Amino acid sequence: MHELGLYDGAASASELKIGYVGGGSQGWAHTLINDLGQCSDLSGEVALYDVDYEAAERNAEFGNRVMERTDAVGDWRFEAYREMDAALSDSDFVVCSVQDPPEETFKHDLDVPQEYGIYQTVGDTVGPGGTIRALRAIPQYREIAATVREECPDAWVINYTNPMTVCTRALYAEFPDINAIGLCHEVHPFQELFAEIAERYVETAEDVDREEIDVTVKGINHFTWIDAADWAGHDLYDYLDEELERRKPLPGYEPGDMAGESYWSNHFQIAFDLYDRFGVLGAAGDRHLAEFVPWYLSIDAPEEIQRWGIRLTPSSARVGGESPDKMMTTRVDEFEFTESGEEAIEIMRALLGIEPFKTHLNYPNEGQISDLPEDVVVETNALLTGKGVTPLCAGGLPDEIHSMVKRHVTNQETLIEAGFEGDLDRAFRAFLNDPLVTLKREHAAELFARLVEIEREYFTDYDLRNATVVE
Amino acid sequence: MHELGLYDGAASASELKIGYVGGGSQGWAHTLINDLGQCSDLSGEVALYDVDYEAAERNAEFGNRVMERTDAVGDWRFEAYREMDAALSDSDFVVCSVQDPPEETFKHDLDVPQEYGIYQTVGDTVGPGGTIRALRAIPQYREIAATVREECPDAWVINYTNPMTVCTRALYAEFPDINAIGLCHEVHPFQELFAEIAERYVETAEDVDREEIDVTVKGINHFTWIDAADWAGHDLYDYLDEELERRKPLPGYEPGDMAGESYWSNHFQIAFDLYDRFGVLGAAGDRHLAEFVPWYLSIDAPEEIQRWGIRLTPSSARVGGESPDKMMTTRVDEFEFTESGEEAIEIMRALLGIEPFKTHLNYPNEGQISDLPEDVVVETNALLTGKGVTPLCAGGLPDEIHSMVKRHVTNQETLIEAGFEGDLDRAFRAFLNDPLVTLKREHAAELFARLVEIEREYFTDYDLRNATVVE
Amino acid sequence: MHELGLYDGAASASELKIGYVGGGSQGWAHTLINDLGQCSDLSGEVALYDVDYEAAERNAEFGNRVMERTDAVGDWRFEAYREMDAALSDSDFVVCSVQDPPEETFKHDLDVPQEYGIYQTVGDTVGPGGTIRALRAIPQYREIAATVREECPDAWVINYTNPMTVCTRALYAEFPDINAIGLCHEVHPFQELFAEIAERYVETAEDVDREEIDVTVKGINHFTWIDAADWAGHDLYDYLDEELERRKPLPGYEPGDMAGESYWSNHFQIAFDLYDRFGVLGAAGDRHLAEFVPWYLSIDAPEEIQRWGIRLTPSSARVGGESPDKMMTTRVDEFEFTESGEEAIEIMRALLGIEPFKTHLNYPNEGQISDLPEDVVVETNALLTGKGVTPLCAGGLPDEIHSMVKRHVTNQETLIEAGFEGDLDRAFRAFLNDPLVTLKREHAAELFARLVEIEREYFTDYDLRNATVVE
Amino acid sequence: MHELGLYDGAASASELKIGYVGGGSQGWAHTLINDLGQCSDLSGEVALYDVDYEAAERNAEFGNRVMERTDAVGDWRFEAYREMDAALSDSDFVVCSVQDPPEETFKHDLDVPQEYGIYQTVGDTVGPGGTIRALRAIPQYREIAATVREECPDAWVINYTNPMTVCTRALYAEFPDINAIGLCHEVHPFQELFAEIAERYVETAEDVDREEIDVTVKGINHFTWIDAADWAGHDLYDYLDEELERRKPLPGYEPGDMAGESYWSNHFQIAFDLYDRFGVLGAAGDRHLAEFVPWYLSIDAPEEIQRWGIRLTPSSARVGGESPDKMMTTRVDEFEFTESGEEAIEIMRALLGIEPFKTHLNYPNEGQISDLPEDVVVETNALLTGKGVTPLCAGGLPDEIHSMVKRHVTNQETLIEAGFEGDLDRAFRAFLNDPLVTLKREHAAELFARLVEIEREYFTDYDLRNATVVE
Repeated sequence: MHELGLYDGAASASELKIGYVGGGSQGWAHTLINDLGQCSDLSGEVALYDVDYEAAERNAEFGNRVMERTDAVGDWRFEAYREMDAALSDSDFVVCSVQDPPEETFKHDLDVPQEYGIYQTVGDTVGPGGTIRALRAIPQYREIAATVREECPDAWVINYTNPMTVCTRALYAEFPDINAIGLCHEVHPFQELFAEIAERYVETAEDVDREEIDVTVKGINHFTWIDAADWAGHDLYDYLDEELERRKPLPGYEPGDMAGESYWSNHFQIAFDLYDRFGVLGAAGDRHLAEFVPWYLSIDAPEEIQRWGIRLTPSSARVGGESPDKMMTTRVDEFEFTESGEEAIEIMRALLGIEPFKTHLNYPNEGQISDLPEDVVVETNALLTGKGVTPLCAGGLPDEIHSMVKRHVTNQETLIEAGFEGDLDRAFRAFLNDPLVTLKREHAAELFARLVEIEREYFTDYDLRNATVVE
Repeated sequence: MHELGLYDGAASASELKIGYVGGGSQGWAHTLINDLGQCSDLSGEVALYDVDYEAAERNAEFGNRVMERTDAVGDWRFEAYREMDAALSDSDFVVCSVQDPPEETFKHDLDVPQEYGIYQTVGDTVGPGGTIRALRAIPQYREIAATVREECPDAWVINYTNPMTVCTRALYAEFPDINAIGLCHEVHPFQELFAEIAERYVETAEDVDREEIDVTVKGINHFTWIDAADWAGHDLYDYLDEELERRKPLPGYEPGDMAGESYWSNHFQIAFDLYDRFGVLGAAGDRHLAEFVPWYLSIDAPEEIQRWGIRLTPSSARVGGESPDKMMTTRVDEFEFTESGEEAIEIMRALLGIEPFKTHLNYPNEGQISDLPEDVVVETNALLTGKGVTPLCAGGLPDEIHSMVKRHVTNQETLIEAGFEGDLDRAFRAFLNDPLVTLKREHAAELFARLVEIEREYFTDYDLRNATVVE
Repeated sequence: MHELGLYDGAASASELKIGYVGGGSQGWAHTLINDLGQCSDLSGEVALYDVDYEAAERNAEFGNRVMERTDAVGDWRFEAYREMDAALSDSDFVVCSVQDPPEETFKHDLDVPQEYGIYQTVGDTVGPGGTIRALRAIPQYREIAATVREECPDAWVINYTNPMTVCTRALYAEFPDINAIGLCHEVHPFQELFAEIAERYVETAEDVDREEIDVTVKGINHFTWIDAADWAGHDLYDYLDEELERRKPLPGYEPGDMAGESYWSNHFQIAFDLYDRFGVLGAAGDRHLAEFVPWYLSIDAPEEIQRWGIRLTPSSARVGGESPDKMMTTRVDEFEFTESGEEAIEIMRALLGIEPFKTHLNYPNEGQISDLPEDVVVETNALLTGKGVTPLCAGGLPDEIHSMVKRHVTNQETLIEAGFEGDLDRAFRAFLNDPLVTLKREHAAELFARLVEIEREYFTDYDLRNATVVE
Repeated sequence: MHELGLYDGAASASELKIGYVGGGSQGWAHTLINDLGQCSDLSGEVALYDVDYEAAERNAEFGNRVMERTDAVGDWRFEAYREMDAALSDSDFVVCSVQDPPEETFKHDLDVPQEYGIYQTVGDTVGPGGTIRALRAIPQYREIAATVREECPDAWVINYTNPMTVCTRALYAEFPDINAIGLCHEVHPFQELFAEIAERYVETAEDVDREEIDVTVKGINHFTWIDAADWAGHDLYDYLDEELERRKPLPGYEPGDMAGESYWSNHFQIAFDLYDRFGVLGAAGDRHLAEFVPWYLSIDAPEEIQRWGIRLTPSSARVGGESPDKMMTTRVDEFEFTESGEEAIEIMRALLGIEPFKTHLNYPNEGQISDLPEDVVVETNALLTGKGVTPLCAGGLPDEIHSMVKRHVTNQETLIEAGFEGDLDRAFRAFLNDPLVTLKREHAAELFARLVEIEREYFTDYDLRNATVVE
């Protein structure tokens, strides 16, 4: 690694402690177990905390048994905790992946707005669903940040929970000195896309690997953009116009075309449509991109969105536990180590000073996006070393994209303020200002109030009594 | 390198062309020959252009004979050119290291101001000497940029010439789409310093290598600062207060103490004094740092500066050809390949997409220093890949440091304007505003006019007739 | 006026020349004649230029005859010109009020979008109608600015034409040193509103005059905001919550309620609804405010907008010449001097150094709105003196309002670029990004292309051949 | 005044209360009495508080007796208070003019630095004297602000005390919602200067009054600049080059020339020299301007500064009570009403909503100087109305001036932080960074420590025990 001018200092790190908040639904926890089991230069304890203690216990048992496997090179012990502070005490890393019970929350986030004609493809980031989820999450993330402040102020917190931007921002708002990053995979398929483009257009390119692609990532989580891409010194952006023509017409599907496909299918239709409109490629799954602007989801029935090669994820899929996330097997005897594609281990190794690592992540703005305000959470490339996170300069956003992104940044900041003050009237301002909320104001207020009412037990940190909007 | 999430695409590059402007004085040219001779995955032609054609020819012959050595793994041919445009035509890289004849220029830059009581430790960056040198360099760098625009607009230009900031800025001012960086070594000794600090204070640290040290570099060339340093996850900045106490009193020398020492000695006395004053470590040689603020060089005799462990470099040393730069041997039979410590080859390999490289360099600000204006040339860390240069966010400067740095940035921008307009009255504003110029205005004007007069043949691009200051 | 610390220098100004571009439709021209006829300390020539020379001649004759009236104290002669440059030559002031023939332009701007379900209450500023109008206007305003540069570079240009922001911006984009302001009356009724509020809530207030009200105006033309209001030291904003409650419910009308009312009726329903949403009062007529956000005009039939106490202005009213503008009488024998409420004379007197004047106006941003970019045209209060226009600091915009305003600012800047480059594809970006354009992209493109096609003769400065969007 | 579009609301205001802090030295207090005695539309009580109660009592008696005069049209009663909170309770206005006993403070501020070769022409704003004075003043101004917060939070506070910027900033730092302005007269002579210039160069100009001159003021107190000036529509800046030539050579005096002149003489020598250097006219007395840059006061003896037509004000003049301030007579029988030239009454009348007023004043930056940070106290023109203070946009500062001004802004902010934290080491950073402090660091530290030691009883709010610099 000395070619990078970077140290290759610590050879390994033992006696680490990883606090894990959430994970009861197993997906992420099992992936972490899988990855730790294959990592030979880190060892220590994983302290599992979940509001569902039994789920944490099951994960702990699973983890300990995996480590006993003969093909496990990692040396980790797993333990379930009943209290978050005990789990996080003296942790070196804190991993967060939490989710409220979908049947009590996510289901309503999706179904109730549909009664008002608002359809969401995902519903976990923006729009009515994402807004309500953000309000629920803020108090939870304040508690995590407060616990980190007390128990392990120097730990690195790795967040996987959506709404990514608001959750990560809440950590910093509660404890400004926290070391936290938010991780998301939505950009990886774009490296694969550009690898294909390299193979298609660059004569010398064959079997190009995703990791050989260098892209400039910028924006906010799920409304991310790529404005430069390179493979081995070849500017791949040069080929995008040709690739766009090849992919036209956009949209290229009909309602009904996606009937048999996975809810998580993605054909880069909206990504390229945004490129066609604004000259910059959208860089998240089309399901996410669609929710940030009003025009794709101004539909009258769920099928219509299939024109763009995607489906709505219905609430039934959420409650039934269908999920694109990671391995779900809980039977140890069936378990096989796999290449997870996750980067948590590389990130930990980098932050421990073992080996530098570059990836895209969510982090407070300190100039990496030069025309967004300081401190709001943005998504860009960053270099991770023993010194911590150093964002890479991504420059500013083109004006039109800036105005779209800024609107969401504003809403996210408003939600943080509302969440910290427990002020639902303030929160409603962000709700009203969301591009998907094109309702008449009284209908918007009714929808907002109904959602809060249905999920009332998750709004105990809010002042419902004095909120005009919920009355 | 895939751990970095970076490609490892092109395995090698042949048929490259490197245009070389300057180098007649041999130092840098021979270093490049040394480094190319040891690089096995690049090959092609080095086209040498110097105003002194014979010097370029001597370098070409030297280079070709070195490549014939049996221990040379590189495959390069060297050729001298009589015209810059032919030398640069279709180049992939352009290397610049030019200098006016010291006996006609540098000598006066140093000696004349001394008659007015202004002493400079170096005199090539700021102060009267640096200002005059900047004015001479701007037309030359415009010409280089114009030639690049015509002959090799996509080439990467690597500048080694001082005043680094102004020269690099002039390239962009003339040809905004140029790809240019400015390289300087002044930060490397600070990595060595921090390696020592690691060894001294971190129990587990032994034989720490410079390259294992990760520092945050920020500022402008020769007035650079380090505000974070890490070795293998250990925050080395934590030990700076203790190290400062160990080094006190500052200054720790007496006039006369440096009598027998090299003009390029450095004891980090001023670097630590700046840390003591402002809480941030100065990060260039003390000889350079001293020139950016008024208080170290407000001396009455050359010896006084020795209190800070440095000497003035007298003009005699400049004219006599003493130089800290690189290998000077011109006899091929005596030549031995050495580890030059230069990074040009690594940088070329990175920009060709062979292997990413991180270093500190001078580059237009696009947010890497968040509180300096866009486009002014700043020095920070950057990542180099096939995609080009991506600066790493360094954040803002502390207020007091900001005001000192900003003053020089202002002067540098004024000099660029003056140089592009040929306006010496405008240039004199920057001269007057330099911290070392504490003369009465009429004396400052006289000094400025005398310097321009003595070096008149180098000011043909300026409108001397209408300049009030030179009359 | 010396109490203001302002001079009261020039007592009068004679031999002035006012160039008048447009005015053939008489409204504005007659108002100016009315005002000049009553102004005793200015005199000179009004040079009338209109693409319809006969119209200009009629205005000239009308003006000259009015000046002959015994109750006319002004001393002005009026003359019609066949060429703009002759009319503007050596002018001290240039007044612009131009409009393309409504039956060939405005009619389509309104009717065609309705076929796509897009209804506009006015259609001259934003939305499909405003966008197309902006594109038509930019070349015309470039010509005016170029003529000013040649014929009267120091003149003050007073623009009355919509789209106000784009027209004024086009003047500065063509000739950056121009002295131009844009005037609009939409804020005046708000001073009347606050006068009423003073009378209602402040015990000591009786018969409060509009001019006694001091409001802080900020935003862009027709999307202006008032965030502070005072009468004689009484903070009138304190009473807005109470006034809002008094006015609720909002909207307070039903479809059909406005059937018999003027198209220009205004009941501050949207202004107060915006206050309710964002805490700041919208400060333009509701007809205008409604067009800047998507939610008021997401209607299925024209009547629906009547819930907000306003009507759509149908194209028939535009073609038929119905207009809220000023006196229409052309028969001199019927003419009576009136108090026009216009400020052009006061503004001229101020700029001539006779008497300072404070009003709100459209002007390039130099910090008056601290969080909008430099140079974009904004609307705020300003002080006019012999020194020129000095904007009054209005501070920044609240985040949510900022994001709405910024979106339009972005579109306006895009339109300027498109207009100067003749690039309709670029213009279409702004069209697509307009909040009222919620169509599917292909429908939006069709609508845009149809509008350009119908008004083709007004798009001769655009490159239709290479515009993808119009094929 | 309706020509200005401004109200002319309240006709008068009675039962006002003006709290007066300081004034024991009589100058300002007597001026206020003089002005109130001649103002017929305001009446009420003036509550006098001074640390020297007897002085306040003398002022009260004086004021009451003046009001009894037959030619007094004002109706005010004066009362001395022993506590500040009682004096300020329910005040409408608070006037501050305080000064520590010169023999215990100011004397040392001037004399001790001279031992180190640092001469100050005034010593109350920047440099060693101004820095020490700022440190003494901050705790006093915090107390005033805290008292205002408790006793009269809506009052307008008018500060006359130096260092103006730091005192005014301290008020806002302690109580961000305070309504405070800082007033200074240094700009008025420049209006007189421009009146002369108008008379000299504009043919039609005769007997031009100061108040007829409209200038754009910008900068920080005592380091203010004028970059535009107008009389009755005539751009007076056009004549400055000619006027500069007329005044050359600069400096135009010799040491000794000022021997018999007043300490407050001013010949605009430095103001014009700054114009010659930077193209913008310095706009404070030369005595003040000289202290903000290093080159005028780098003298070896007091007489040398006389080259610039000014004198050092020696400490003897300060202790002896010589002062340029206002009327000093305390014998009522000798008292005659005069035109004071002060604007306090006009300002109060404006803020009460009686009549708008425009002047230059010190106020937190909200964009009036577009390239200085928000909230720092700057000096520009402003409009005062019943709504409060609205700064007029002054634009940015030219780069070179910006860097000089910014340095002082940085120091002032550092002093505020140091004063609020009681941190003398932090204060010493500002001291060291002052342009007049060109001493070696150890000498600077010694000087700083000596000043603090001598004035120790005024530093009770500082943590002397833990300050490294004072040991």
